[in-house]
Amino acid sequence: MAVKGISRAVVRRLPRYFRYLGELKDEGVEKISSQELSELMNVTASQIRQDLNNFGGFGQQGYGYNVSYLYDEIGKILGLDQRHNLILIGAGNLGKALAGYANFEKRGFYMRGVFDVNPELKGKKIRGIPVMPMEDIPEFVKKNNIDIAVIAIPKTAAVPVARTLVDCGIRGIWNFSHVDLEVPPTVMVESVHLSESLMRLSYTLTNPSAFPMQ
Amino acid sequence: MAVKGISRAVVRRLPRYFRYLGELKDEGVEKISSQELSELMNVTASQIRQDLNNFGGFGQQGYGYNVSYLYDEIGKILGLDQRHNLILIGAGNLGKALAGYANFEKRGFYMRGVFDVNPELKGKKIRGIPVMPMEDIPEFVKKNNIDIAVIAIPKTAAVPVARTLVDCGIRGIWNFSHVDLEVPPTVMVESVHLSESLMRLSYTLTNPSAFPMQ
Repeated sequence: MAVKGISRAVVRRLPRYFRYLGELKDEGVEKISSQELSELMNVTASQIRQDLNNFGGFGQQGYGYNVSYLYDEIGKILGLDQRHNLILIGAGNLGKALAGYANFEKRGFYMRGVFDVNPELKGKKIRGIPVMPMEDIPEFVKKNNIDIAVIAIPKTAAVPVARTLVDCGIRGIWNFSHVDLEVPPTVMVESVHLSESLMRLSYTLTNPSAFPMQ
Repeated sequence: MAVKGISRAVVRRLPRYFRYLGELKDEGVEKISSQELSELMNVTASQIRQDLNNFGGFGQQGYGYNVSYLYDEIGKILGLDQRHNLILIGAGNLGKALAGYANFEKRGFYMRGVFDVNPELKGKKIRGIPVMPMEDIPEFVKKNNIDIAVIAIPKTAAVPVARTLVDCGIRGIWNFSHVDLEVPPTVMVESVHLSESLMRLSYTLTNPSAFPMQ
């Protein structure tokens, strides 16, 4: 599949295409033109055609896109046809929220274990997933073929934990700690910095003529 | 202040500058060159100079940036010198996590009320903030000068709630529901679509040669 040379901006938009196509599929829609998709997603039809052309183009002139096929293909490009085993570091409210998303499993992301520094949580379960002490991370990761770790702990704790995760072979980190993690280039990090998102909202409120951020 | 014509990409980066400058300030650092900031933030020095020039440029040749001054100025541009009154819709785990961030208050974001459909939560408190029934939203928003609503409920419920919020004069919505909210152009929406973020991580794991997403 020709996915080299795709810009970061296009990749950023792919999950949104996937979401809309999934909804259309659920509604029983079989095909859609770039124009209709454009109105639905509030982006230009030419952007849609350009974006989807990156992947060889799934549209047929005069017919439009086959919703189900395009959904599946974008899913494959995003790696959603593969199973990922996850662990969660941090069983606070945010961690609990993340462990509780049943939707992630539908996409192939399976939460296998939760780790927390609080000894009182040891042996407890979150949505059926056992909470374990931090020192058990390396063995658990190796035994359970874990490839993604979700970090939802304060930033001072996140830095040494990331080091441990890298040492035991984690391939991807979904980082909710308010710090940019330094990892080798072979380890992928996707950060969600919530307070930065709130600041961007604040910016648009202060500068309402600037542009919508959605 | 000349903040017109700033690209969305620059605005996206501003909170990160703010974070690094805040950390430098806390460490007692008084000045920093674009080169030093570049190494710290892992972006090019020329990008830093270009970005900060958008705001009239705070650097002096051969001296560098005054950390405290630049921190304050970026804070003002982001509107963090103003007080914002927030309400939270949805007292689930994610809502609780968002209500619990003491850091938001330091930046001027005050959580004043929580609303939930669950009648059992009525009268309870989350970090001292009262939980109220959904029908109380309009009166509470007007009486308490609320300008931002945080939406952390399932997508089907989010659409009518957003309409209510718009009708009672909310100016900004921080949206965690998995839907793009349609609001008038005077209402600002910043969405955090968590599952899309996870899909982007999945993409980089599937296409490791593509680029880091951090």
